[in-house]
Amino acid sequence: MQITLLGTGNAAGMPLYGCDCNYCVQASAVRSLQRTPCSALLEVDNKRYLLDAGQMNLAERFPAGSLDGTFITHFHPDHVQGLFHLRWGKSLSLPVYTPPDTQGCADLYKHPGILVFQQLRKFSEITLGQLIVTPLPLIHSKPTFGYLFEFKERKIAYLTDTKGMPDTSLEQLMLNSPDIMVIDCSFVPHSDNQTHNNLDDVIDLQKQVKPGKTILTHIGHDMDIWLKKNPDALPEYIMAGHDEMELVAG
Amino acid sequence: MQITLLGTGNAAGMPLYGCDCNYCVQASAVRSLQRTPCSALLEVDNKRYLLDAGQMNLAERFPAGSLDGTFITHFHPDHVQGLFHLRWGKSLSLPVYTPPDTQGCADLYKHPGILVFQQLRKFSEITLGQLIVTPLPLIHSKPTFGYLFEFKERKIAYLTDTKGMPDTSLEQLMLNSPDIMVIDCSFVPHSDNQTHNNLDDVIDLQKQVKPGKTILTHIGHDMDIWLKKNPDALPEYIMAGHDEMELVAG
Repeated sequence: MQITLLGTGNAAGMPLYGCDCNYCVQASAVRSLQRTPCSALLEVDNKRYLLDAGQMNLAERFPAGSLDGTFITHFHPDHVQGLFHLRWGKSLSLPVYTPPDTQGCADLYKHPGILVFQQLRKFSEITLGQLIVTPLPLIHSKPTFGYLFEFKERKIAYLTDTKGMPDTSLEQLMLNSPDIMVIDCSFVPHSDNQTHNNLDDVIDLQKQVKPGKTILTHIGHDMDIWLKKNPDALPEYIMAGHDEMELVAG
Repeated sequence: MQITLLGTGNAAGMPLYGCDCNYCVQASAVRSLQRTPCSALLEVDNKRYLLDAGQMNLAERFPAGSLDGTFITHFHPDHVQGLFHLRWGKSLSLPVYTPPDTQGCADLYKHPGILVFQQLRKFSEITLGQLIVTPLPLIHSKPTFGYLFEFKERKIAYLTDTKGMPDTSLEQLMLNSPDIMVIDCSFVPHSDNQTHNNLDDVIDLQKQVKPGKTILTHIGHDMDIWLKKNPDALPEYIMAGHDEMELVAG
């Protein structure tokens, strides 16, 4: 089971539009320094699942038939706007698994096209071949699910966007400590935000869940710069994600 | 006064995702055969205005400070989704002129960031330097404005998305026959649709408005193929637009 981080930025991305700091100026010219909308690709059992769909090049990168489904964490535009293009496709359908959000985003529900939306229930597993997926409720400004993916005793948790976590989700993760935990870390330590983790929140969760590796994603501008200025600051087993990072569980 | 068509496709675009017709297969590999979300750039009086914001590369193509404003025809995702990125910019503001749509798209109104939305009133001119802009109500499934741009007796009309036109808008255009009329032509002749023009509708409007040139945009998959199969079918003074087409009024 492999996960590739397609994007590791927050909604603003890196570089930040209009920012003339040295980091943004450099990132404007160097793809490896950029952070695009938070998204990943899970490859398992000869299937490919998109985790969120906010990337701008989905139609080009994933030709029709190359995706077996999409798991949506929540319906903010930076997590779903790539669906606006895919939906008008022809001669195929794409399962889109989502939290129970009655609103969706813009007119996606009204005009789904090839998208087959399937609302999941919290903690209610679904099975796709030998892959078992458990939706874990998170704490954000829209109904939001993280997902625990299990395949042949290997486990990957994808947990964004969130501020901390409900006790019930935390208990599930403590019982099923993942090999890899990819998690929202939008903000620098000590910063105050009600809908996204800062690094303190992540360290707290990491200590309780005890995953093999913890990978930071949804990294905001200031957090990105903090990481560059403090290259040795992350505790053992915690790493900053980057766009196109590939991680193999087991 | 110059207008550059940034995109000339409908929401589905060309190639159509999942379509294996010869035209789509060719378009997958050749940029000049592709049609991206319908949008244009108006350059006049040393200013640059975006006409709709559905393109995916706005932040890269238009660095901060290079745009003086955006005119939105309506709030369907393929016409506004580029704003989702620009809004989180820093140290600048971007005027966004719109029709009076109370809904907008997704959470753009709730979280405008650097976007300064300004709802216009039908037929109520606004003046930007020596540029005079008249919002013309169109007939679509959302509140929609076309725009008549006038600069030193040169006139460009940008009219999409629409099925026909209210008499009041038509009268304005007949009184102010534009040098260039860029207009929605989504469908082939005789086709039936209530929210977009087919070629018959465009020819009918062209005969009444009598613009110098009529340029087709928002071209759908079947219309695109029809144009390729019938290269001499368009009446005099009517031309199919293409992405990156540049047109000068006067």
